[in-house]
Amino acid sequence: MSWRNELKAVTFDVFGTVVDWRSSIAREVDLLAETKGFLVDGAEFASAWRALYQPAMSRVRSGGLPFTPLDMLHRMNLDEVLGQFGIEGLSEPEKQHLNRAWHRLDPWPDVVRSLTRIKSRFIIGTLSNGNVSLIVNMAKHAGLPWDVVLGAEIAGHYKPQPEAYLKSAAVLDLKPAQCMLVAAHNSDLQAAGECGFKTAFVPRPLEYGPDQTTDQSPESDFDIVAEDFVDLAARLGC
Amino acid sequence: MSWRNELKAVTFDVFGTVVDWRSSIAREVDLLAETKGFLVDGAEFASAWRALYQPAMSRVRSGGLPFTPLDMLHRMNLDEVLGQFGIEGLSEPEKQHLNRAWHRLDPWPDVVRSLTRIKSRFIIGTLSNGNVSLIVNMAKHAGLPWDVVLGAEIAGHYKPQPEAYLKSAAVLDLKPAQCMLVAAHNSDLQAAGECGFKTAFVPRPLEYGPDQTTDQSPESDFDIVAEDFVDLAARLGC
Repeated sequence: MSWRNELKAVTFDVFGTVVDWRSSIAREVDLLAETKGFLVDGAEFASAWRALYQPAMSRVRSGGLPFTPLDMLHRMNLDEVLGQFGIEGLSEPEKQHLNRAWHRLDPWPDVVRSLTRIKSRFIIGTLSNGNVSLIVNMAKHAGLPWDVVLGAEIAGHYKPQPEAYLKSAAVLDLKPAQCMLVAAHNSDLQAAGECGFKTAFVPRPLEYGPDQTTDQSPESDFDIVAEDFVDLAARLGC
Repeated sequence: MSWRNELKAVTFDVFGTVVDWRSSIAREVDLLAETKGFLVDGAEFASAWRALYQPAMSRVRSGGLPFTPLDMLHRMNLDEVLGQFGIEGLSEPEKQHLNRAWHRLDPWPDVVRSLTRIKSRFIIGTLSNGNVSLIVNMAKHAGLPWDVVLGAEIAGHYKPQPEAYLKSAAVLDLKPAQCMLVAAHNSDLQAAGECGFKTAFVPRPLEYGPDQTTDQSPESDFDIVAEDFVDLAARLGC
């Protein structure tokens, strides 16, 4: 296919696509609960925390909040979800440590070796709503070999606002058609595609746990539909 | 020393400190001259091109120009230096290719293995006046294993303006004292030090060729003075 010849950069959604946030957050919450002696289901806590993610960003997208890095939105949401679960008695350093659990998320098992293959042929970068320090610390934790960290904080806009995609391409001095977004989420890929990005769907059917019904399959005509990152690397000719 | 315990990120000046711009540019100019059949001393051309670098950035720093990525300043300067040398007959694609010689600079021989060592213990990033695409493409060309690309374009200010250093630390969610700048240039390190960065001087006595007299030795009380990047890695405990 001809677009492959001009593709220069493969960018990635991170939460859910690259890393398994739910299991990672659940593990940290379960560990903290054991240490501190409170009762909570870590996976339910993770899901409740994540459920506040889109509403918080919506306040920024609508202009109700100025651009606020995700770490700070996560913290506002953490205080709320601790209240929902009736968890008291965490010190401020303990809350800060728990908030940075998002910096310590583990990758899905097909990720690191596949990114290394894709990196041999393309620029690989993050195009995430995570702030730069979160993504950099996660990369150090998980061994993710990014060439460049792009996305919401660099653009000053949260996905799916078009500026998030367009500014990321512009910073690489590339046209949108020279860039691809890889994501497990139809809405993210649809927004990127409308900006001229090439698109690759990789399903993560267990991102939200065993009861997940969304994003099980592609809902648009994406340029690549891959089974996993190993398949993605192969389809990119890496 | 106690500051070592809180050091999290080691950031690097790039042109001259990490890469040997003069030999690399000279080689490309000599090759182009041979191909196109004009006479020029590539090293002299490189020095003349670089001599326009600070004046161009000064126009941005003073507000005479809005923030302009270095690729565009390089191109304005290239047109001027081609005139100075009386070189005509380059096509627009040839000029664009030559301008991107700054994306293809080679590292000094002690760099790649030492960065890899330092990366095992610290976040390593660029804190350069080069724009993001220039630094990313150079990293792909030269095998430079950066964790993050920071500096002028991210900050919207050219070094040695304090915003360039302070914004780089802020994006990493670190205090300036948790960051170090490594550079071969006293003025850059002095400016970083005034912002609270830790400082490491590594001399590059041949950066400007055999007649260089500047920056042969440290002119302030920097936190580290290293012989080269191998020595720097050792002094950082890596």
